[in-house]
Amino acid sequence: MTKNIAILPGDGIGREVTAEAVKLIQVVAASRGETWNLEEGLIGGSALDATGSPLPEETVRLCRAADAVLLGAVGGPKWDHLPGDKRPEAGLLGIRKALEVYANLRPIRTWPGLLLASPLKPELVEGVDFIIVRELTGGLYFGEPKARLDGGEAVVDTLHYTRAEIRRVVKMAFELAKGRRGRLTSVDKANVLESSRVWREVVEEVAPDYPGVSVEHLLVDNAAMQIITRPKTFDVIVTENMFGDILSDEAAVITGSIGMLPSASLGEAGPGLYEPVHGSAPDIAGQGLANPLATFLSVALMMRHSLHLPEAADAIEQAVHGVIDRGIRTRDLARHGEAFVKTAEVSAMVCEDV
Amino acid sequence: MTKNIAILPGDGIGREVTAEAVKLIQVVAASRGETWNLEEGLIGGSALDATGSPLPEETVRLCRAADAVLLGAVGGPKWDHLPGDKRPEAGLLGIRKALEVYANLRPIRTWPGLLLASPLKPELVEGVDFIIVRELTGGLYFGEPKARLDGGEAVVDTLHYTRAEIRRVVKMAFELAKGRRGRLTSVDKANVLESSRVWREVVEEVAPDYPGVSVEHLLVDNAAMQIITRPKTFDVIVTENMFGDILSDEAAVITGSIGMLPSASLGEAGPGLYEPVHGSAPDIAGQGLANPLATFLSVALMMRHSLHLPEAADAIEQAVHGVIDRGIRTRDLARHGEAFVKTAEVSAMVCEDV
Ligand SMILES: CC(C)[C@H](C(=O)O)[C@@H](O)C(=O)O
Ligand SMILES: CC(C)[C@H](C(=O)O)[C@@H](O)C(=O)O
Repeated sequence: MTKNIAILPGDGIGREVTAEAVKLIQVVAASRGETWNLEEGLIGGSALDATGSPLPEETVRLCRAADAVLLGAVGGPKWDHLPGDKRPEAGLLGIRKALEVYANLRPIRTWPGLLLASPLKPELVEGVDFIIVRELTGGLYFGEPKARLDGGEAVVDTLHYTRAEIRRVVKMAFELAKGRRGRLTSVDKANVLESSRVWREVVEEVAPDYPGVSVEHLLVDNAAMQIITRPKTFDVIVTENMFGDILSDEAAVITGSIGMLPSASLGEAGPGLYEPVHGSAPDIAGQGLANPLATFLSVALMMRHSLHLPEAADAIEQAVHGVIDRGIRTRDLARHGEAFVKTAEVSAMVCEDV
Repeated sequence: MTKNIAILPGDGIGREVTAEAVKLIQVVAASRGETWNLEEGLIGGSALDATGSPLPEETVRLCRAADAVLLGAVGGPKWDHLPGDKRPEAGLLGIRKALEVYANLRPIRTWPGLLLASPLKPELVEGVDFIIVRELTGGLYFGEPKARLDGGEAVVDTLHYTRAEIRRVVKMAFELAKGRRGRLTSVDKANVLESSRVWREVVEEVAPDYPGVSVEHLLVDNAAMQIITRPKTFDVIVTENMFGDILSDEAAVITGSIGMLPSASLGEAGPGLYEPVHGSAPDIAGQGLANPLATFLSVALMMRHSLHLPEAADAIEQAVHGVIDRGIRTRDLARHGEAFVKTAEVSAMVCEDV
């Protein structure tokens, strides 16, 4: 059976890491005796340069017709001065909304060989393994009005949710927790926000359907502290869009290996969107220094969640573990003075082992 | 000259730490041959129990007539089930708004003797010394509408700012930076929020008035990472209310000594509101185990910012440093197995040295 995968390289090192991921995907397809259909689309700054839009209609069409979408990264200083709707990020927000991928899964884990790179003490982060489920298509990001008022003297953004929007992402988080260690942490600001009080109500409404999952509610300011002081105790964290944006980046950095972190954005039906957590890193772009492993792990998530090939997912994850265990390091992971391999080298090693 | 100081003990250990702070303030007054007028007011859960309101009108009157207000802490499980406007936190939000203390100053610093308590590696946090200036009376906390819609199927909160509200807090941050190391970091989410784009514009408008202050803009998700990876590099951070709530607690916890962190909330005129960063800690309330030093340092800020007694502020800070340097530890600061002193003991030591 063939698969249709849309590849959106985007900007900066996004181009380099997706190029290696294409090789990896082809290895997987070949190992199954199949030829998959991989098609590239424009997004972000490079789409702006080529077409004047950060998300051309053609890209949306391509993605909607695909089984899964792999995205590199968008953005860079070249486009930073442009107005909001003409910025690379608008492409990212646009494709999330177009595909209605309402749940952003951000697995946070530390790697035994990479513990020392964490800013936290090793005993705090050893064995950390949780997932943040961030609501991705609602809240402050998309609520209306989002506008200047009173002749520009005032400004408003709107944090809007429907119960249905909250329920679907909360359910996905419960499902995940059920398949893991059975602990769900819901993060809100119920002592201040009405939307958080509804959020909490919905979590309580859904909870009885998952008797094996224990639920804890944390206020977002407290969660920002607990993620640092007791990261090992979390299993699944679910929260709204803006809180999730902040907490998932905070959680990423405590691992010390942001170059190893994948993400998956999923909807009810339709293709999932897979993306490494690191950005476009314009400072090292084009030099073959990027770490492709977060993208490889994103491809593993794609195999598992969109292509229904769990063995392929396992094989990729094992191959990535293998190179790390053997002490192979890309530039971002190498400690001062340590030798490191280039993008294509580590990619070839993983592809060989898959 | 007499001073009028309103004391709002609030709930939990708030009562214990303010009781010690009253002694400290009286020592300062006595050392100047003065008798100051200290009057207690009700706030939070204890106000709810006594009057049915978390912020009785009488408390607002008392505070408005004072030169400064010292607050312990509010909240506790006893009141957690109550509806929003009947919760202890409503008293806190209410007094901030009533006094229009729009700038919450949260100094973040590590103590040489307490470095090992940090979850971060000591080399990352040694010498950390910055201030977060959080906008405190606008944004998502107070914007309207804040309501359920469509028969409860949807909900909205509103992030509203006027340019004037942004300008006054940004100016205060520039002033602080000017008197410190001359570095201002403004945190926003300008790639998504219209209010953040206005925030950034206002910072750029004010900047030319402070040629000696360098300005950097960070996106809030990036800031959540940088606070952990390079805390030493910050001098003054300014941000809106909700971002400030999250980042200031994150920053507090990296010091490893949240029991030592004071805060000051200031307005244009009128009394400032001073408050330790730790909460009401219901689990240890009433046992004489609370650390009063964050409250003492809050009193020092009060001396400096509201009472215009910089020497008294210095004396308190030196006395607190003295006991820490001598190895005195309260329970929260004691490492496993280390001896610790009780609330009244450490308080007496500081009062003696002031
Ligand atoms: C680029 C930006 C709009 C985006 C977001 O805030 O969602 C990014 O920070 C992310 O987390 O994917
Ligand atoms: C109790 C709560 C309403 C309050 C806030 O969010 O402002 C607290 O977290 C704080 O930071 O003082």
